Amino acid sequence: MGLIVQKYGGSSLANKEKILNVASRVIERYKQGNQMVVVASAMGDTTDKLVEKIKMITDDPDPREAAMILTTGEQISIALLSMAIQKMGYPAISLISSQIQIKTENKYNNADIINIDQTRIKKELAENKIVVVAGYQGVNDYNDITTLGRGGSDTTAVALAAALDARRCEIYSDVEGIFTADPRIVSPAKKLKEISYTEMLELANLGAEVLHPRSVELAKAYDLQLYIASSFVDKPGTLVKGVNDMEKRKSVTGVTSDDNEVKITVQKIPDKPGIAGRLFSRLAANGINVDMIIQNLQYNNLNDITFTINEEQLVRGKKIISEIAEDLSAEKIEIDKDVSKVSIVGAGMISTPGIAAKMFQTLGSEGINIQMITTSDIKISCLIDEKDVKTAVNAIHQSFNLEE
Amino acid sequence: MGLIVQKYGGSSLANKEKILNVASRVIERYKQGNQMVVVASAMGDTTDKLVEKIKMITDDPDPREAAMILTTGEQISIALLSMAIQKMGYPAISLISSQIQIKTENKYNNADIINIDQTRIKKELAENKIVVVAGYQGVNDYNDITTLGRGGSDTTAVALAAALDARRCEIYSDVEGIFTADPRIVSPAKKLKEISYTEMLELANLGAEVLHPRSVELAKAYDLQLYIASSFVDKPGTLVKGVNDMEKRKSVTGVTSDDNEVKITVQKIPDKPGIAGRLFSRLAANGINVDMIIQNLQYNNLNDITFTINEEQLVRGKKIISEIAEDLSAEKIEIDKDVSKVSIVGAGMISTPGIAAKMFQTLGSEGINIQMITTSDIKISCLIDEKDVKTAVNAIHQSFNLEE
Repeated sequence: MGLIVQKYGGSSLANKEKILNVASRVIERYKQGNQMVVVASAMGDTTDKLVEKIKMITDDPDPREAAMILTTGEQISIALLSMAIQKMGYPAISLISSQIQIKTENKYNNADIINIDQTRIKKELAENKIVVVAGYQGVNDYNDITTLGRGGSDTTAVALAAALDARRCEIYSDVEGIFTADPRIVSPAKKLKEISYTEMLELANLGAEVLHPRSVELAKAYDLQLYIASSFVDKPGTLVKGVNDMEKRKSVTGVTSDDNEVKITVQKIPDKPGIAGRLFSRLAANGINVDMIIQNLQYNNLNDITFTINEEQLVRGKKIISEIAEDLSAEKIEIDKDVSKVSIVGAGMISTPGIAAKMFQTLGSEGINIQMITTSDIKISCLIDEKDVKTAVNAIHQSFNLEE
Repeated sequence: MGLIVQKYGGSSLANKEKILNVASRVIERYKQGNQMVVVASAMGDTTDKLVEKIKMITDDPDPREAAMILTTGEQISIALLSMAIQKMGYPAISLISSQIQIKTENKYNNADIINIDQTRIKKELAENKIVVVAGYQGVNDYNDITTLGRGGSDTTAVALAAALDARRCEIYSDVEGIFTADPRIVSPAKKLKEISYTEMLELANLGAEVLHPRSVELAKAYDLQLYIASSFVDKPGTLVKGVNDMEKRKSVTGVTSDDNEVKITVQKIPDKPGIAGRLFSRLAANGINVDMIIQNLQYNNLNDITFTINEEQLVRGKKIISEIAEDLSAEKIEIDKDVSKVSIVGAGMISTPGIAAKMFQTLGSEGINIQMITTSDIKISCLIDEKDVKTAVNAIHQSFNLEE
């Protein structure tokens, strides 16, 4: 018994049958005596269709006007879900961000939530209603609609759960939980019963698309349990929680890959103190996020600096990098899109020697060349040729016995 | 120079080209030095598609949840129109009802506007922005979204024009103005340069679908000029204004027909004082609007009462009428859907003798039987067989020389 916040993704609400299925699932928990707050995404591919409408008029929309359009998808799905719950005989009410004052920063996209006013939700819960809240959206100081960016509905759910002091937050989509690897790539991949916030954060940042890193960070900050499961099957999912609760820390929890990396090499920069600093601070100032970095001193006091950025930022990034390279008197820029980052993540990695060596040996024995390496306390990433990804991920999964 | 409120209907915003066309038209007036407030309907058939979504879940939606969905169409069109104006280099901002506090009654559909807060619109106008407002929607005391019912965007436009003390309110759609008859039925029908509020009100109530009666009433109450024209051609439209401004009052201004009438006869009710009163007060209490009425005393102190209602109310009305008829010991109910109401409207009618006689003679000479008649100071309506409508309207148009 208690307050439960559930979030249902767009694929879980894609058509009539799926909406009715979600309504039944919500009612089931309500009948058990729980207060239910349900966060809904837009149905199926609604958001893509809204983006198409915007593109019909402009490729560079005013973010305020874009938010006005993009948030209508959730407004429709929450009302349909409420109607479905009502039709099954239970009280429900849909609420948009302006009605519960999900206050965000004054920017219009990718805005962070600052505060949630609980008055309206608590009033509706006190009247025994199932409250259905629009994900992905907020309002700012001007009472204008804002969007929370990618994975925004997850963020809405976690923020609501934290604000309302919920027992836990359940995230439902078409995936059954967090796996040791992407089951589409590694067939013996195993679903994890539990994973720590830190590990989940690394996996999310490394391209596991189940959960957005922001929502994991928020859950970690409020020590709120996140439960990840599928709305289509009745199988147990994965619980994301504090590491102190874990019975034993596995050295490696999962392996993941990210094809969206682009490798950029700025060649033959005259070696002077601070050139790397100048290069990367200017990239940061222009909003280009750099991931992996290597610097090589070549002959004749010339430097090669190699780094990776996300493919999405390539068009803007290329222009800015060319300008900087010219200022630094670099000879040439090389861009390689056919690379992929393979990573292993595990909270116990730090206390287990030889993990990195084992990963490198595994790749080596498959004849896969490692182009770049980065490590953190709980993660080791290697940049490899994109064509080798499937082989690499399967070999690593096997060598660390992740299928158990 | 001054403040102009324009309203564009759904057909005027149905696709990219039409949105860009509207943006150009708005900008043209803005460049002449006018402050522009533009009210937009949902694009093309968007509202129908939203209704389909609702019907997917339920045939009897909670009006609050239905309003949540139905108002998204306007939210999308206003942002697209703002983006189009911005792309052409002019400042624009879209506003929904919660942002300008278009306060309505606490019911969720067909709600009347109570008040409009001008703060936000005036702020944006002061910053020289073109303000694009979502039609058809309001908010109530609970900060919930409400809808204004049919022709709601016209009402939004007129209410805004009144609140902002605009010079005039321009209503653009795919029709070129108010005609002496529906040009699809009467080919020599002539566009009117001017029409009085009262005449327009009768025409709107009689089924001329160009303008909703509510918006005409509101314009009349605030003595606000309404200009009706097409967004697709550059031809002068029709000005709706106070009758005192009219140079001469024509005896008949226009002829119109309405196929949505249903004739209901409650047969052989024992004649007692007050039976008609009991019948019609119970219909009114059940929200059934009655239009034309005849009562005939038959032999044996039995009454036949015949009246017409709108076809939309037939399903609910039939049930209620049957109950009442039973209570009144009536013998039988007869329903005839194949009827149509033909009306002539004219402010000068009251001072011109013989208008009614001429209408009846015209119908008679075409062999058309008149089933019921109602008159007001500026209107005469006859109920006839639906199959005769085209002949009737054309004959009347010609006999009153409406083509001039």
